[in-house]
Amino acid sequence: MVRHFELDLNLVKEKLNFMAGLAVSNIFLAIKILTDRDEKLASGIYTREEKINSLQIEIDNFCLELMALHQPVAADLRLLVSAMKINSELERIGDQAVNITQAAMDLIRQPQLKPLVDTPRMAELVQRMTKDALDSFVRKESQLARDVLKRDDQIDEFKDRIRAELEALMSQDPGAVHRGLQLIMISRHLERIADHSTNIAEDVVYLVEGKDIRHHQER
Amino acid sequence: MVRHFELDLNLVKEKLNFMAGLAVSNIFLAIKILTDRDEKLASGIYTREEKINSLQIEIDNFCLELMALHQPVAADLRLLVSAMKINSELERIGDQAVNITQAAMDLIRQPQLKPLVDTPRMAELVQRMTKDALDSFVRKESQLARDVLKRDDQIDEFKDRIRAELEALMSQDPGAVHRGLQLIMISRHLERIADHSTNIAEDVVYLVEGKDIRHHQER
Repeated sequence: MVRHFELDLNLVKEKLNFMAGLAVSNIFLAIKILTDRDEKLASGIYTREEKINSLQIEIDNFCLELMALHQPVAADLRLLVSAMKINSELERIGDQAVNITQAAMDLIRQPQLKPLVDTPRMAELVQRMTKDALDSFVRKESQLARDVLKRDDQIDEFKDRIRAELEALMSQDPGAVHRGLQLIMISRHLERIADHSTNIAEDVVYLVEGKDIRHHQER
Repeated sequence: MVRHFELDLNLVKEKLNFMAGLAVSNIFLAIKILTDRDEKLASGIYTREEKINSLQIEIDNFCLELMALHQPVAADLRLLVSAMKINSELERIGDQAVNITQAAMDLIRQPQLKPLVDTPRMAELVQRMTKDALDSFVRKESQLARDVLKRDDQIDEFKDRIRAELEALMSQDPGAVHRGLQLIMISRHLERIADHSTNIAEDVVYLVEGKDIRHHQER
């Protein structure tokens, strides 16, 4: 029974890891639409998004089943509760990738406003945060989770710099307003993905160390 | 034992209801800063936000304790898992109220861009969605939860109209760019609160009817 439960817990982790892979791919491709001005990438994003959504429901039901079946306590119970939370975070990361896709599809129908430097860099950082947050969960490495949390400051810097630069452009050129606004929205979507990733990382620290570091009680 | 567990479940509901009340007050006051141009309201918002954050941790720990202690199955297990999810949603609603506060404090330091009509109306709708979502949970009324879900279309209309109007203003007047952007951000924060409220409502439908209506499988 116990061995079987452990196999089931590993299966939960594998499913979450697979889901995270789909979400990270979608962030990558959504930004690629923008940088390569390639609208053909969108359909694959939507296919993956559907898969993410059905995985969310599947994982939620599986975790509830395991709770009811094995009635875990202590560490195993916490693991399952964390898995369900992480599941929600990943689904929302998927939603943000779709939001980026929509803004990108609108932007590439218009002349390029400016060469993109910060946005792809911010997106790269964000993808790594999501990936590392999941890795820290699967491998129970709270040090990696803490490392993800530290990267939040860089995200804030990107966000502030992108907004200041675009605000200046928009103030100089009325024709830049719509496109500037879309690019600012994209940076906001990326910021939200980073938020979800730090939520995952906080869960991992709690799970591994038993310390609740939400609301920066410690940071 | 069973009676005691029921009392504990009611206590979870009461705590969540109290937390929702704080969050809804903070949305109301954050918008009031803007409409009344009254910066003195901010400090009360931050006090309430701290209370929301400590309640989140308290409720999470309490739910975990109850799971470990009573090893609930079926409906009671689902109720506790939903309570933990709703707890996260409420905490994030609180965060958005703080984001609105920050944008509002910046805006009232500058001359008013335009008379505000849609923003306070959208905020009123959003407050009612949060309140009704929680009521539907406490009273197990899935019809009320479904009603909350239906209001999402109105939110989208507000969001689109606010953005179109401000984008036009910003394109005509470079001096309007910064303030227009802040007002657009406020409408985005309100939209996110509506999102969190519909997440709660979806949980309630699942809890009461056993139907998973996430990802609009039904809507």
